[in-house]
Amino acid sequence: AIRYLSKRHQERVQLIGDMLLQEDFDLVLLQEVWSERDYSNLKAKLGGCYPFSHYFRSGVIGSGLCVFSRFAILDTLLYQYSLNGYPYMLQHGDWFCGKSIGLIIIKISGIVFNIYVTHLHAEYCREKDAYLPHRLVQAWELAQFIRHTSKAADVVLLGGDLNMHPEDVGIRLLRGWTGLRDAFTEAMHFEGCEDGCTLIPNNCFTVKTELLPFPLGIRIDYILYKAVSSFMVKCEELKTTTGTAPGMDIPFSDHEAVMATLHIRRQGQAVGANLGTAEPMLADVVTEARTEVGVGLRAAQRQRYSTGRMAVLALLLLLLQAVAALGVLTGLAAGKPFPTLSFSLLAFLAIVVLLLATGLHLFHTIEVKMLQGTEEQMRMALRVLQERP
Amino acid sequence: AIRYLSKRHQERVQLIGDMLLQEDFDLVLLQEVWSERDYSNLKAKLGGCYPFSHYFRSGVIGSGLCVFSRFAILDTLLYQYSLNGYPYMLQHGDWFCGKSIGLIIIKISGIVFNIYVTHLHAEYCREKDAYLPHRLVQAWELAQFIRHTSKAADVVLLGGDLNMHPEDVGIRLLRGWTGLRDAFTEAMHFEGCEDGCTLIPNNCFTVKTELLPFPLGIRIDYILYKAVSSFMVKCEELKTTTGTAPGMDIPFSDHEAVMATLHIRRQGQAVGANLGTAEPMLADVVTEARTEVGVGLRAAQRQRYSTGRMAVLALLLLLLQAVAALGVLTGLAAGKPFPTLSFSLLAFLAIVVLLLATGLHLFHTIEVKMLQGTEEQMRMALRVLQERP
Repeated sequence: AIRYLSKRHQERVQLIGDMLLQEDFDLVLLQEVWSERDYSNLKAKLGGCYPFSHYFRSGVIGSGLCVFSRFAILDTLLYQYSLNGYPYMLQHGDWFCGKSIGLIIIKISGIVFNIYVTHLHAEYCREKDAYLPHRLVQAWELAQFIRHTSKAADVVLLGGDLNMHPEDVGIRLLRGWTGLRDAFTEAMHFEGCEDGCTLIPNNCFTVKTELLPFPLGIRIDYILYKAVSSFMVKCEELKTTTGTAPGMDIPFSDHEAVMATLHIRRQGQAVGANLGTAEPMLADVVTEARTEVGVGLRAAQRQRYSTGRMAVLALLLLLLQAVAALGVLTGLAAGKPFPTLSFSLLAFLAIVVLLLATGLHLFHTIEVKMLQGTEEQMRMALRVLQERP
Repeated sequence: AIRYLSKRHQERVQLIGDMLLQEDFDLVLLQEVWSERDYSNLKAKLGGCYPFSHYFRSGVIGSGLCVFSRFAILDTLLYQYSLNGYPYMLQHGDWFCGKSIGLIIIKISGIVFNIYVTHLHAEYCREKDAYLPHRLVQAWELAQFIRHTSKAADVVLLGGDLNMHPEDVGIRLLRGWTGLRDAFTEAMHFEGCEDGCTLIPNNCFTVKTELLPFPLGIRIDYILYKAVSSFMVKCEELKTTTGTAPGMDIPFSDHEAVMATLHIRRQGQAVGANLGTAEPMLADVVTEARTEVGVGLRAAQRQRYSTGRMAVLALLLLLLQAVAALGVLTGLAAGKPFPTLSFSLLAFLAIVVLLLATGLHLFHTIEVKMLQGTEEQMRMALRVLQERP
């Protein structure tokens, strides 16, 4: 929902508000609410039904994440992903959103819920996905953040637009490393788009060409959950919207909404927190992810090098011009007309290139550091996995 | 320890390594190790005594944080502060460091330790501290991060350069909101600089003029701790270095090292985690911090506005020039000589101002969002504090 840019934006925010009022959920996790004014309007409208809400602020535009709840929000925390695309990819714009993880803590009948909402970097080209290493770093940070912050929670819930297909390495990493289970595969009853797809061709706001290899659509929005300590969660029902909103000519959004009914039960005996995937398999997933991060690291190192070289060349050009100008001023080239216009244009060009290349060099230096850091964390995780009896 | 810039840097890193080998600590938390090469050298040197270590990578230069440990590091997590000074304050340089919190988890005799190491934004002018709101946001994020990630820990330890005096609002907020206790005030035995100061005039690397109002020096480096669950921590001894290293003519660093001997004991009955400050007092501290964050917010909003206006003016100037150039091209001012040099210089100036002002505007937009987010989190904390019976 980008103000002034998204098609029929106002109308759709209103439709979403109406639907949330009518369905009367316990908890609503929204992504891509880019405008705080839309959030405020929704908050005013939904106040009666969802008295508690929170908007996560970050980046230039905002994180787009917000939460509406029937239960009091006891605490919140925001974690901004360390990598999130490139500032110069203006047409993709992910960098400006300050993509983050939002955490809220609520308590229902004495059960502590850690609720996470997030939105990972988009995938613009599946065949040649330049953002895969960034999205993998995000998936890893998401898994690590959940593991480290959920140790006192009874139930962990994650909802959001993960921009990953169910079989992608990032989602296997996230599920394996946190032990979260996928509501779609666990649901006892399902109703909605075939295969649980959330980006479908039968939605007038999706880009049809991107979905050509997937005639049914793709499933990239998830509700994941797990119970730690002595609780059990079951997904009784999972539903998705199916394109056009009931009685309207447009859908609520380009993505289909995912709605889960969860049943939470106290168990007799406490079961220790365990990982979701058998450990030898998990080690393979971490290794696979680490390889992809390594590919990204080498690309980032190349870009750091080439932008650094560009900056040095621009600096040399400027120095050369300074020497030439000095030559003219000291009268070495007296008599010859000085080409003022071309000279100043060239200097201008050199300064612009110097500034841009320096900025990019700094950016790619940060990128290299974060990819190295993630690779090392993954190596440590592998060591811990291998050392376990 | 900035390579090529810091005075007698090589010698001092070596001195620090020698001292760590000789003293044979259990755990060492270092800040301002800006060069990864220094870390690698230390790691090679200390490998026998401290077989486990971790360097936290972030920002352009690095976080400067690293850890050496006699015990296996089971897990790590990095949290980068959302605000950390201004990129254009090159002389202060904090922004480039990617100031962060490093978390490592270790286990000693079955006791789980969450160890945090951090370095907050420096204070350059105490009378007119432009960075106070940023440092307060960092103190708040530090407190929130510790609270959310330490729920399964038996013992929490925080060490680092907090750049705050013991009575400052940031340190009161941190201690009050996490329940951490100050090793200096709790120590049964103390040995070192008077008042536990860690930045003292009697150290040849400190800036004497900054310490003029504090003849004894200031205490800005801390070891804080608490035990959750059924454990008790006591600080048996606290020591600081005292300027010049033994037998040398230079100190190890511009800050004095803080060394604590902690005694950890299992307690008969579990005591619930509690806050460090009586709650009505804590509400006052949060209110005081929120007021300061509000002051920073208004300053950031003013800067966002003025940089935005500057960008618009530069754009208007460029448009005006374009109209003038069109006028010349279409022959409206035929006959008059066109001032090529001044024209291109002016265009160059306008473009540079436009680029810089736009960049700054985006930066201050992020700053406003983060300050608003922190203010709101603090408001929520106040509500929770007030609602408690």
